[in-house]
Amino acid sequence: MKKISEFEYIKKFSGQFLKNLPKQVTGIGDDCAIIPYTSEKSLLLSTDTLVDTVHFLSHKMHPYDVAYKSLMVNISDIAAMGGVPLFVLLSLAISPDTEINWLDSFFEGLRDSCQKYSVNLIGGDTTKTPGKTVISLTIIGTAVTKNIKYRSSAQIGDLICLTGTIGDSAAGLKCYLEDLIPLNIINCGIKEKAKTGSDIEKIIYAHLRPRPHIEEGLLLSKSNDVNALIDISDGIESDVRRIMENSRCGAEIELIDLPLSSSFVKLADKYGWDCYELAITGGEDYCLMVTIRPDAYQKIATQFKNKIDSRLTVIGEIISIDEGLLIKKNNKVINFKNHGYDHFR
Amino acid sequence: MKKISEFEYIKKFSGQFLKNLPKQVTGIGDDCAIIPYTSEKSLLLSTDTLVDTVHFLSHKMHPYDVAYKSLMVNISDIAAMGGVPLFVLLSLAISPDTEINWLDSFFEGLRDSCQKYSVNLIGGDTTKTPGKTVISLTIIGTAVTKNIKYRSSAQIGDLICLTGTIGDSAAGLKCYLEDLIPLNIINCGIKEKAKTGSDIEKIIYAHLRPRPHIEEGLLLSKSNDVNALIDISDGIESDVRRIMENSRCGAEIELIDLPLSSSFVKLADKYGWDCYELAITGGEDYCLMVTIRPDAYQKIATQFKNKIDSRLTVIGEIISIDEGLLIKKNNKVINFKNHGYDHFR
Repeated sequence: MKKISEFEYIKKFSGQFLKNLPKQVTGIGDDCAIIPYTSEKSLLLSTDTLVDTVHFLSHKMHPYDVAYKSLMVNISDIAAMGGVPLFVLLSLAISPDTEINWLDSFFEGLRDSCQKYSVNLIGGDTTKTPGKTVISLTIIGTAVTKNIKYRSSAQIGDLICLTGTIGDSAAGLKCYLEDLIPLNIINCGIKEKAKTGSDIEKIIYAHLRPRPHIEEGLLLSKSNDVNALIDISDGIESDVRRIMENSRCGAEIELIDLPLSSSFVKLADKYGWDCYELAITGGEDYCLMVTIRPDAYQKIATQFKNKIDSRLTVIGEIISIDEGLLIKKNNKVINFKNHGYDHFR
Repeated sequence: MKKISEFEYIKKFSGQFLKNLPKQVTGIGDDCAIIPYTSEKSLLLSTDTLVDTVHFLSHKMHPYDVAYKSLMVNISDIAAMGGVPLFVLLSLAISPDTEINWLDSFFEGLRDSCQKYSVNLIGGDTTKTPGKTVISLTIIGTAVTKNIKYRSSAQIGDLICLTGTIGDSAAGLKCYLEDLIPLNIINCGIKEKAKTGSDIEKIIYAHLRPRPHIEEGLLLSKSNDVNALIDISDGIESDVRRIMENSRCGAEIELIDLPLSSSFVKLADKYGWDCYELAITGGEDYCLMVTIRPDAYQKIATQFKNKIDSRLTVIGEIISIDEGLLIKKNNKVINFKNHGYDHFR
């Protein structure tokens, strides 16, 4: 296939599917589609696909963890609109070399993660494929209609904030790609205690068990001072471009302000990784990126601290569309070679 | 993977996902999941996956037709509960050798088929895969809650009926597998006029453009004398077993009574295919199989003729669970070598 980005292609065809949409229905273009539900609530729907060797590594990752992460990725889209997840449907295309044990562990992981987030698996389709295993989930959630936040509502002057640290998941993936994963994690999957374990365990945990920021999304969605909201799936650079595209604005990001975990910084230092490059181009952290009216930041940051014991870190500002995307380090514009993850490239 | 059927495996794990379901929610086990919607209506949700070389043949089938069929397969699940389709989400994992032209035609087929059935594509995810292209659709529809029909409601003595002819799609697939497809159909896709063309054109049309029986499903769902309802996706033999399993009953099917199209019979005769075997084990006809109280059959069959100009053909009867599945030809029990399509085998 010729080089065309997923982003460009979706833009090309999505217009055709946005015509004739019923009133009050939001189609392609945000983290979720929205359809009317009760007088106060809407249904949120989203689908995400994970392909073996592209989004996960079946020979190195435990099927329990693969299932767990697949659900988290989908729940995160609901969090990014200010909703709560309720139901999920699974489409599973299974490669010929898959063992029954793999399937058993996969469904255990799906069952446990569904239980943890009070999500019900209500439908599915399993089929064989001669190729690599493909996992597609469709998640359904609800949100209070008037609170739903979009990618398209950022305003010039808004502060750009993150609800969590960034780069951990990309570093975790790097550990997989550079064969730094302890054998017990490859064989048995990650354990809950890894969350408070060694630096490498914490980083691998971040990659395998991203936490969808539901509480954060709910809190943010209740505020009229919060404008745009999105989750970090493909990386800050890709995802801020989605806000820019949808809100017709530019953005300035200051690398020095990115919230990096100490484990991430220590590992990057140890292995010689450029932590800023990883943090801005690596994806799958699944925290939220939000744009907030600058005069309201302090109030919301205090709520974050008091209500959900969490931090809201300012990493930049929404600027005019003419200025495009400015990524700065110590206030000097810089350029990265690599760009955010694009599933077509 | 060891030989285990999709059917057995789903049974094995689905119990774990049926616990803790909210009241009024129906999970895994029927054509669709059901969640409450308005005071009178429910939402129906279903997902179906089509894999290149397993469910379609990308080197012989036009992408326009592949997209069209993918939507029909999903809409049929809505029809099988007595609902109407409204929305669809697409997950597309694209193989590396896919051309942009293929994608363009695929999305044209999806757009046109969506328009034809007043379905809106409201979300999607496109990604690459190193394997074969995998298409997953999740369809959302509505139905009047009190009219929804299930697989689990068949009663002993019910007549088993079909809402359309059977075997045409399997014969169409056979034409693909035996290289009987005219080159213009391979290159340009099927045209609307094939519906009234030569026998082989009609049969290929039936395979590529199955018509979901929405009108038939709606009519049937309004009657209290209709018990179980399912669509023919994997073949009569597989699908009647689903009714048997869910309704805890047996079934008797008379081959001589199967409604076969004249084009199918003529082609089977020409190429030496066993038309009864194809008709009972081949899938993808996407008409509906329904069980009806015997004293109500005539009334409903008359409604079929008068209201939707369609036939309702009796092909058998629901019997006791102890008798299992009896497939008869001229009232003599027979056995087939092959069984209904199973995506695991």
